[in-house]
Amino acid sequence: MDDTYFMHQALAEAHKAADRDEIPVGAIVVAGTRIIARAHNLTETLHDVTAHAEMQAFTAAANTLNSKYLDDCTLYVTLEPCIMCAGATFWTQIGRIVYGTPDPKRGFMQNGGTILHPKTTVTGGVLEAECRELLTAFFKGKR
Amino acid sequence: MDDTYFMHQALAEAHKAADRDEIPVGAIVVAGTRIIARAHNLTETLHDVTAHAEMQAFTAAANTLNSKYLDDCTLYVTLEPCIMCAGATFWTQIGRIVYGTPDPKRGFMQNGGTILHPKTTVTGGVLEAECRELLTAFFKGKR
Repeated sequence: MDDTYFMHQALAEAHKAADRDEIPVGAIVVAGTRIIARAHNLTETLHDVTAHAEMQAFTAAANTLNSKYLDDCTLYVTLEPCIMCAGATFWTQIGRIVYGTPDPKRGFMQNGGTILHPKTTVTGGVLEAECRELLTAFFKGKR
Repeated sequence: MDDTYFMHQALAEAHKAADRDEIPVGAIVVAGTRIIARAHNLTETLHDVTAHAEMQAFTAAANTLNSKYLDDCTLYVTLEPCIMCAGATFWTQIGRIVYGTPDPKRGFMQNGGTILHPKTTVTGGVLEAECRELLTAFFKGKR
């Protein structure tokens, strides 16, 4: 069980979003080797901008652990988190963020990563092609 | 009904947070002259960092309007929003943000306001002393 394995799990969530005609982004939260939360983007279904995959995953993970701090956890998400979601990671003090494909337009890295908690480490580009292609296919279908 | 009137409504929410031993921050969303959402910080009660007053207010307002866009609305919040909440306002395209007291440590303005949607305007310092004093009293009680 490595980053690729867990990103495949996040990708499975992203496919569920695509099936609902949502922008296909999926996320999981892992504690040790245990997946404690799975979520996918539901902003259209819920008419709610706060329903990004990551935000739901944080709520679910905190619920599982009965703690708002996720410092021993890793977030796997198919798309680089936006500023809202990166801002949320600060409050969770999450140990690590692993994302699939970069989001040069709305990703948090445009802010130089200063948004994150100092304890949080970041790895990008895991299964990047697969994560990107799912998004590209979705938006191509919208045109 | 002006900014002071609506900030008093947000302050009433902040007092509800204080009553629950939560950091006292309150928020409302106003469409025209109608209050369509009221919320207060519940992060400790829910063990959930995403349960800031603003985030809950956005979800409730979007639910009332059946739309994820709040472009004709104003957020009144007793404390300057954090980066997570400011990032959420981007996605809502909210028309206006009015806050009470600044948060030099965790407020979004430290990022020069570039987080917000270009359509969003900001007013700070409405009932600043009342909003600040409620927070100061809360933290004094914690020592």
